[in-house]
Amino acid sequence: MPEPNDGRALQRLLDELGRLPGIGPKSAQRIAYYILESDAETARRLSSAILDVKRQVHFCPICFSYATRDTCDVCSDASRDRSRICVVSEPRDVSAIERTDSYHGLYHVLGGVISPMDKVGPEQLHVRELMGRLADGEVKEVILATNPDVEGETTATYLSRVIRPLGVTVTRLASGLPVGGDLEYADEVTLGRAIEERRSL
Amino acid sequence: MPEPNDGRALQRLLDELGRLPGIGPKSAQRIAYYILESDAETARRLSSAILDVKRQVHFCPICFSYATRDTCDVCSDASRDRSRICVVSEPRDVSAIERTDSYHGLYHVLGGVISPMDKVGPEQLHVRELMGRLADGEVKEVILATNPDVEGETTATYLSRVIRPLGVTVTRLASGLPVGGDLEYADEVTLGRAIEERRSL
Repeated sequence: MPEPNDGRALQRLLDELGRLPGIGPKSAQRIAYYILESDAETARRLSSAILDVKRQVHFCPICFSYATRDTCDVCSDASRDRSRICVVSEPRDVSAIERTDSYHGLYHVLGGVISPMDKVGPEQLHVRELMGRLADGEVKEVILATNPDVEGETTATYLSRVIRPLGVTVTRLASGLPVGGDLEYADEVTLGRAIEERRSL
Repeated sequence: MPEPNDGRALQRLLDELGRLPGIGPKSAQRIAYYILESDAETARRLSSAILDVKRQVHFCPICFSYATRDTCDVCSDASRDRSRICVVSEPRDVSAIERTDSYHGLYHVLGGVISPMDKVGPEQLHVRELMGRLADGEVKEVILATNPDVEGETTATYLSRVIRPLGVTVTRLASGLPVGGDLEYADEVTLGRAIEERRSL
């Protein structure tokens, strides 16, 4: 349903674009002018894609990542290794790990991290559902891939404590120097961790 | 009209966002996840703003800038100084100059610059319409505000040659060091121009 023409269509688009993450006033203007200068079909496709993603994308009932079909692409892929579950905080973390092409198991999205400050405990996350997935003994390893920050580490420690008694191997992503990074510019905590967790060659 | 749910709604949004200027794959993903995580009303407003801007914004028949009413905000503003016209290449240049709050005259958007390489001559630009606006003698000054690059200078030189015979003052935006810039980092052409066009103090 089109808004009435109040003479503010361009300003309204600038306002809406400016709300998007990483889009400042200059980027908003550049995008708005691009839309103005492109053909009507380009604008229609972008506009529909925004609405469709809200209409068609929902949470996967198994892993709580985003899904467009009944279950997500990973859960419904018979070729994935069903003996491993990688636990992440948000659906976007699934995409990040998928891009590496280094992991072929399943995922479980917690929907956040344990954070007493924000009143988020295990009950507010999809922890119960994770435990449910571990019940039948098919899963042999749970990889904790929450962020290497305070909340992420707290969440990993908590999950490790509740999962280990089930006899499931619990692992954590390695911390250390970024590949291609420069030792001189690494922060002390990262560098310290890289020394502690050094590998034998 | 929603697209059929082919399970590719998220990918389609990423593709469409990735076509926007200044939006790489990472920004597209950040924006797509923001849209997924925000409420349906946010997505609806953004989607409508994109369609509305195409439906409601058109070229002002006087100055060829963007207008949402019959004529643009500047042309229809009785308080603007009608003795000056600032000639720019694109509608976005109007916004750039308006943001300075240093100019209160009218505008004329050429819709490009003279560029023999791209087969753009004066006939492909809104030059005839500019000359028409100068016919009644109300305009005393034309400020040529095309970019300080080869095409912009060529266009300014051409316009200067055809406008001056009408007895209208023709001026050009000053070139020189950016305010707050550092002499050491200025390119040689800019620095050379700043020396040539030095002001007496």
